[in-house]
Amino acid sequence: MAQSQRPRIGIIGTGAIGGFYGVMLARAGFDVHFLLRSEFAAVAEHGLTLNSAIHGTQHIQPVQAYQNAADMPRCDWLLVGAKTTSNSALAPAIIQAAADGAKVVLLQNGLAVEENLRPLLPASLHLLGGLCFICVHRAAAGVIEHQALGAVSLAYHSGPATDTAAQQVLLDTGVAMFKAAGLASTAMASIEQARWQKLVWNIPFNGLSVLLNADTTALLANADSHALIEALMHEVLQGAAACGYVVPEGFVGKMLVATQRMLDYLPSMAHDYRQQRPLELQAIYAEPLAAAARAGCEMPRVQALYQALAFLDAQNRS
Amino acid sequence: MAQSQRPRIGIIGTGAIGGFYGVMLARAGFDVHFLLRSEFAAVAEHGLTLNSAIHGTQHIQPVQAYQNAADMPRCDWLLVGAKTTSNSALAPAIIQAAADGAKVVLLQNGLAVEENLRPLLPASLHLLGGLCFICVHRAAAGVIEHQALGAVSLAYHSGPATDTAAQQVLLDTGVAMFKAAGLASTAMASIEQARWQKLVWNIPFNGLSVLLNADTTALLANADSHALIEALMHEVLQGAAACGYVVPEGFVGKMLVATQRMLDYLPSMAHDYRQQRPLELQAIYAEPLAAAARAGCEMPRVQALYQALAFLDAQNRS
Repeated sequence: MAQSQRPRIGIIGTGAIGGFYGVMLARAGFDVHFLLRSEFAAVAEHGLTLNSAIHGTQHIQPVQAYQNAADMPRCDWLLVGAKTTSNSALAPAIIQAAADGAKVVLLQNGLAVEENLRPLLPASLHLLGGLCFICVHRAAAGVIEHQALGAVSLAYHSGPATDTAAQQVLLDTGVAMFKAAGLASTAMASIEQARWQKLVWNIPFNGLSVLLNADTTALLANADSHALIEALMHEVLQGAAACGYVVPEGFVGKMLVATQRMLDYLPSMAHDYRQQRPLELQAIYAEPLAAAARAGCEMPRVQALYQALAFLDAQNRS
Repeated sequence: MAQSQRPRIGIIGTGAIGGFYGVMLARAGFDVHFLLRSEFAAVAEHGLTLNSAIHGTQHIQPVQAYQNAADMPRCDWLLVGAKTTSNSALAPAIIQAAADGAKVVLLQNGLAVEENLRPLLPASLHLLGGLCFICVHRAAAGVIEHQALGAVSLAYHSGPATDTAAQQVLLDTGVAMFKAAGLASTAMASIEQARWQKLVWNIPFNGLSVLLNADTTALLANADSHALIEALMHEVLQGAAACGYVVPEGFVGKMLVATQRMLDYLPSMAHDYRQQRPLELQAIYAEPLAAAARAGCEMPRVQALYQALAFLDAQNRS
């Protein structure tokens, strides 16, 4: 594939997620440009380092790094790896960095993130959801630690591709891009279905890692927290079902087995909490609770967890 | 009242609760004897000090203090202020310190504490439940800080007084004893009713003070934790109702107003947690959850809180 034929990729928010996928795509020969804020100086000087338990250590130096989206070349794909808490503030940068008909992929957890960003983007941009199954965190400015996994599921949300065939072509291109970088990737028919399924994991593990100050191994090893995790997962399944998204049978069991294989994994929300960053409570808790409530479904344990986290988040940043 | 006519009172477990009531009764002229374990030496040397925001500073020196129940004179009333977590271990001491037909009062929170102790006591002893509405904690060995309140509700559980009239005489005597010490006190007809009502407060505030590392003022000031407290209270009301105990209308509102008046009060469970003592999870959470479940009532938020606390308790003491 000649350089000119390759899509140009922009990374909006070069934290753990954006950094990981950006470095992996750059390493595979894609033309990747990184938008950074507070870490720009460090990355411009020292480059980006990915310490991966699977792919070894990757170092990019120099990095095509930018402090302002206005300075970036127009990109065909924009991968948004920032926290959902900053989405509305990022819309102008996304618009500035987007080529005509660009594909904007929200590599984020939670519900309704596309719905909330869509009104802020021009109709000419494609909006996709991307769900990352990955254990990764930012160890320092420009340094990303990758513990396990890395798969990306893509789904089309909205934009110029109005028929299924055109959407499928876009999804196939996106999937091929991640696969060319050595990563598992699949296209999913429904972004909402995909987001609810991911929430089955995020809702218990993200929240409890903050509330109980514990990693996945500790949370699963204790009989009480293990039972709480399962009860939360089943409430999320009920919420999803009320909203019309039936999660495949055996999904909870598979999630638990997969999580047991993640050694001592500390979910991203625990990292956010320890670094006094805002927690993604709106996307991961408030939106699913509201969607389930609109469908007549209460999720009392999820709501209790959300309220406890909202208290901690407020104290943590006050 | 001559010394000889006064009932002799034994305090089993001279922590915050036992210490407070013991000092107040001794100050009122009752013959009070204190059983201590780890703090015996400190109290024998320095006495007992009660720093009360209401009653001023009270100092008893020397204290009628004992390290072994076998050394105590036989007491007419035994006030058990120890944690429910040590009840079964305390039964032999209670029996040794009890005069014939003694009244054993469990000044403890939670459900089924009398049921669990009763089989360990001889039938000749009266067993009563006592619920303390008080803000008090142990600041150091033999030093008790009293912030607010102090009322005791008494109810008869089991023993030689088989008819209501005989039980009422005993309760009246107990109530008069606390009133003589300047404390509000009332007799309650049903110990279960009284315990469920107290749980409406204990379940949210004890647990959340540990889980969110916060005092009552902070928990009520935040809209999310305030809503969680109310939701937990309403679940406890439902559990109580399922078990046949209807809590008076407006009780939750009154509890919240009373709590708002307790400035920066840190519930006892938070003190226990900080000092790595076992939490009273069996009496305050597991027993009510089991009782409600037997009556066909789920309390999902209470159960989630219990499971989270059980995890923290295990980690805290490992």
